[in-house]
Amino acid sequence: MPTYQAPTRDYGFLLHEVLDLTRYANLPGFAEATPDLVDQIIAQAAKFAEEVLQPLNAVGDTQGCTLKDGVVTVPDGFADAYRQLVDGGWPALVCDPRYGGQGLPNVVGVVFNEMVSSANMAFGMYPGLSHGAYSALIHHGSDDQKDTYLPRLVSGEWTGTMNLTEPHCGTDLGLLRTKAVPAGDGSYRISGQKIWISAGEHEMAENIIHLVLARIEGAPEGVGGISLFLVPKYLVGADGALGARNAVRCGGLEEKMGIHGNATCVMNYDEATAFLVGEENKGLKAMFTMMNEARLGVGLQGIALSEVAYQNARAFAKDRLQGRALTGPKNPDGPADPIIVHPDVRRMLMNVKAFNEGARALLLWTALWGDLADRAEDEETRRKADDLMGLMTPVLKAYCTDMGFAGAVEAQQVYGGSGYVKEWGAEQFVRDVRIAMIYEGTNGIQALDLVGRKLASHGGRAVFSFFAEIDAFIEANGDDDSLKEFVAPLGVARKHLEKATMWFMENALEKPDNAGAGAADYLHLFALTAIALMWAQMVRTAQARLANGAAGDPFYEAKVVTGRYFVTRILPRTAAHLAAVKAGADDVMALAADAF
Amino acid sequence: MPTYQAPTRDYGFLLHEVLDLTRYANLPGFAEATPDLVDQIIAQAAKFAEEVLQPLNAVGDTQGCTLKDGVVTVPDGFADAYRQLVDGGWPALVCDPRYGGQGLPNVVGVVFNEMVSSANMAFGMYPGLSHGAYSALIHHGSDDQKDTYLPRLVSGEWTGTMNLTEPHCGTDLGLLRTKAVPAGDGSYRISGQKIWISAGEHEMAENIIHLVLARIEGAPEGVGGISLFLVPKYLVGADGALGARNAVRCGGLEEKMGIHGNATCVMNYDEATAFLVGEENKGLKAMFTMMNEARLGVGLQGIALSEVAYQNARAFAKDRLQGRALTGPKNPDGPADPIIVHPDVRRMLMNVKAFNEGARALLLWTALWGDLADRAEDEETRRKADDLMGLMTPVLKAYCTDMGFAGAVEAQQVYGGSGYVKEWGAEQFVRDVRIAMIYEGTNGIQALDLVGRKLASHGGRAVFSFFAEIDAFIEANGDDDSLKEFVAPLGVARKHLEKATMWFMENALEKPDNAGAGAADYLHLFALTAIALMWAQMVRTAQARLANGAAGDPFYEAKVVTGRYFVTRILPRTAAHLAAVKAGADDVMALAADAF
Repeated sequence: MPTYQAPTRDYGFLLHEVLDLTRYANLPGFAEATPDLVDQIIAQAAKFAEEVLQPLNAVGDTQGCTLKDGVVTVPDGFADAYRQLVDGGWPALVCDPRYGGQGLPNVVGVVFNEMVSSANMAFGMYPGLSHGAYSALIHHGSDDQKDTYLPRLVSGEWTGTMNLTEPHCGTDLGLLRTKAVPAGDGSYRISGQKIWISAGEHEMAENIIHLVLARIEGAPEGVGGISLFLVPKYLVGADGALGARNAVRCGGLEEKMGIHGNATCVMNYDEATAFLVGEENKGLKAMFTMMNEARLGVGLQGIALSEVAYQNARAFAKDRLQGRALTGPKNPDGPADPIIVHPDVRRMLMNVKAFNEGARALLLWTALWGDLADRAEDEETRRKADDLMGLMTPVLKAYCTDMGFAGAVEAQQVYGGSGYVKEWGAEQFVRDVRIAMIYEGTNGIQALDLVGRKLASHGGRAVFSFFAEIDAFIEANGDDDSLKEFVAPLGVARKHLEKATMWFMENALEKPDNAGAGAADYLHLFALTAIALMWAQMVRTAQARLANGAAGDPFYEAKVVTGRYFVTRILPRTAAHLAAVKAGADDVMALAADAF
Repeated sequence: MPTYQAPTRDYGFLLHEVLDLTRYANLPGFAEATPDLVDQIIAQAAKFAEEVLQPLNAVGDTQGCTLKDGVVTVPDGFADAYRQLVDGGWPALVCDPRYGGQGLPNVVGVVFNEMVSSANMAFGMYPGLSHGAYSALIHHGSDDQKDTYLPRLVSGEWTGTMNLTEPHCGTDLGLLRTKAVPAGDGSYRISGQKIWISAGEHEMAENIIHLVLARIEGAPEGVGGISLFLVPKYLVGADGALGARNAVRCGGLEEKMGIHGNATCVMNYDEATAFLVGEENKGLKAMFTMMNEARLGVGLQGIALSEVAYQNARAFAKDRLQGRALTGPKNPDGPADPIIVHPDVRRMLMNVKAFNEGARALLLWTALWGDLADRAEDEETRRKADDLMGLMTPVLKAYCTDMGFAGAVEAQQVYGGSGYVKEWGAEQFVRDVRIAMIYEGTNGIQALDLVGRKLASHGGRAVFSFFAEIDAFIEANGDDDSLKEFVAPLGVARKHLEKATMWFMENALEKPDNAGAGAADYLHLFALTAIALMWAQMVRTAQARLANGAAGDPFYEAKVVTGRYFVTRILPRTAAHLAAVKAGADDVMALAADAF
């Protein structure tokens, strides 16, 4: 059976040593986030993830959820674990203190979420969706709505959902048909069917707050006629007490490839009482607030599953005796050597390790920009932070799930045949993480968001900020001999990224298919470059520690080796991505649909 | 529900136009394999695969196999389909006429096997394993054994298995413990446990012929003490009649990620009556005969599943309406355009299509060399053919399953959320094909076979033959303007492959870890180069047809476009693989095991 041990040392390294949160102690929330408190939170969260959530991961996969008479039963142990989550105050970690939150920076919440997802991705989606609902409401809800719903979303007593997809529309929300009719009392009655609603129905919380996209009767067609509504499972009285059961029911559960522990529901709305959130016909914008946050959370799932898959593959590789090292026996008294002596097994482990640690750094770096976008004192910093956060969101979502899936697959490969057998658990990680490439906007949609929107907006301001970050690093460290082997390849990757960016500017404005055809490769090129920056930063920090008091510490030494592995073995892929971008759309678009 | 339509036109194109089997009409079996007969076989096989096997594919996945009182029940419909397979004479297709076979070239059998695997991979493994047993026996069995067992393996009345793995040993067969004791009458009694035995037990055939690796009492330790045995489920009398039930029983079925329709058995041998095949202590060599053939068959599964996954994704992409083309509506009367208008969707389809067709060409090209190795008249050709076949076997096994899995995943991605839901079937292809990267020697083992054995043997004779094939093509076609865009990148890839080969020669002899660390990348570089040669050949043939009587034929036009896509978008990856090879083993081996 798989196990999980939270990578607490890596979290500390990133938060305290590389990102150094104490630099921002002047900002709200950061003041409280002292290294001591953060370490304490990490330790407690690790215990909860390792001891409570992880043992339920295989149970959730095997049992799945069941629906009977409209009631969804979650796997054994999930309800109790959820209670412990609430009792521990975890849902409140990064929420607004005005509504009972602890107000810590989101970068700390990201660390918590990674641990939860590693331990039990399907479970983590219940509080994950709640937090999305919280975000949509705190940004777009009325004061009354906030007062009514936020405290119990923050405490976790209630959970939340996002209702976007309908059978005939997923990506193209302009087609949606769910209808909202004014009831005359300021509320609406919503009717329609939503599908693939994660955490859509269960009994773990007293109430479920559904956020639902619908079209108000008479609203314009397309995305300009979509509004966001709040539909509670149980209506809430003025005193906060739960009232009548609302006309929203789970009509079915999807049978899926994985994340069986999460209830993926068909939700039927039959004149359900609903409350408008934000302005009429501005629902898509409000939903994007929720979705952008969710996208970072999905990228995180990619890293989280790759991490736990890696840990278990590593344990297998140290334990399984098979064959002898090419350089002679390493376990001469045993019948064979542990397979970790074989270069190809190590190659797989190093691939996954280099991704996990590099991507985690990028995730936390980006989450920190997100915090600065909200909390920095000067507008200039907030603007730049918001730019970088927006730019990196699709990059992280798509790259970390593409590669997180690849990491889980590569970890499974380390096991040989055992990786294919259910009892070892490696295959569950693969099945679970696969959804992350799809939901919250497929990775293709992320690439289009990056190329079609984020690159272009404000004349490329965000991407210039990103290049400036790289240039500043190169400028500051280019003369450091011990960093040359990292700075030089970073410079090459940066050049490839710049060429690809220029190529779009020159070739995609008049011919947008050139952007669409190269978007996915561009996104990977972008991510590789960003992660090269992260590795250079991490190695710089590690080398400084090794030179100052931590000589011989295997943690820092491993950082340097892993960073080197990344730049020599993985980063050279940027050239192929650039070639693919520059190949343009012609061959992609040449075939008639019938010729496929 | 997924469907399958055999790519019969592509088979005809490859067998008749690109490879032109009629060139070998002087050789045994080829004389009979006229284009007419081959087309007839393909058409009948297609009908069988599409109408009989494919509809059982989801059934097999859902029901799986069950074990009760030692009896394995296969999914509904499998037994009837197996009867139809036998009645159709399909197992005999490429077998030796002396034992009732039809004696056709194996390259025709490969086409049949691809169709079977596309339609129902789990089902296809039953006859697939039988053919492996046939091969081992025909090469290593005694005349008596051949006479007794081969006719009914050829007819399909009996099936066969391969028994290698034990709980503590898979790749490292030297560790195996299953014991054989001479019974005094020339037979042996075998005791031990084998695991992961595909098609190990079922009632679809009257008898099952297990080929089992075991160690004769007193034999040397390690691989030099392993012998191959034949253990029939029912003993066979001198008259061919079935006798007593042998002491071999299925002790359990594995729960797996996929291929649920195939019974993956724990096989317990309890003093089972066994007959030595070939010489004592030479079992591993005999088993390799079976395994090498099986490896090509596994590579084929990668292509087969990628093909069927592609076909269904293509249908989805033409049917699903979502969004508008970047260049303006293509389906103005509908609510949205079919998603095949979107460049990123096309990119995914083109990726898979370019792999499927290129890899299929390489598979058939290699299978043809295999036929020539057996049947060519002059020894020089037989030797060269055997070299190329041996060289390409690990390349095909590993590359076609790595990329076949990637193709199934990419096809699943085309569906968006529907790809994750069981009822659409896309996720089954992903789960099923995943095993192909693992069994019959993990892909890492294939890479070591390529680099450690195939490259080095006879002073690199095989790889020089391969380079000579490329050079001959470039020489013959380099001046053809219409082929320049294919020949030039082929030359670049060839150069990368040569550099990587030289790097191993210079750096891996004294430091074998350098070979191990670069082997997987080298194998991919090798495959890309070989497939570039295939594309160049296919495009040449297609262009010739377009210029001579088939102007405007969309099939040939699509070949040219898809070949162009391959060389501009996929082939540039060779540079990154070369860089990874040249990065060497140092960073891969640097970490202590505890630092992972």
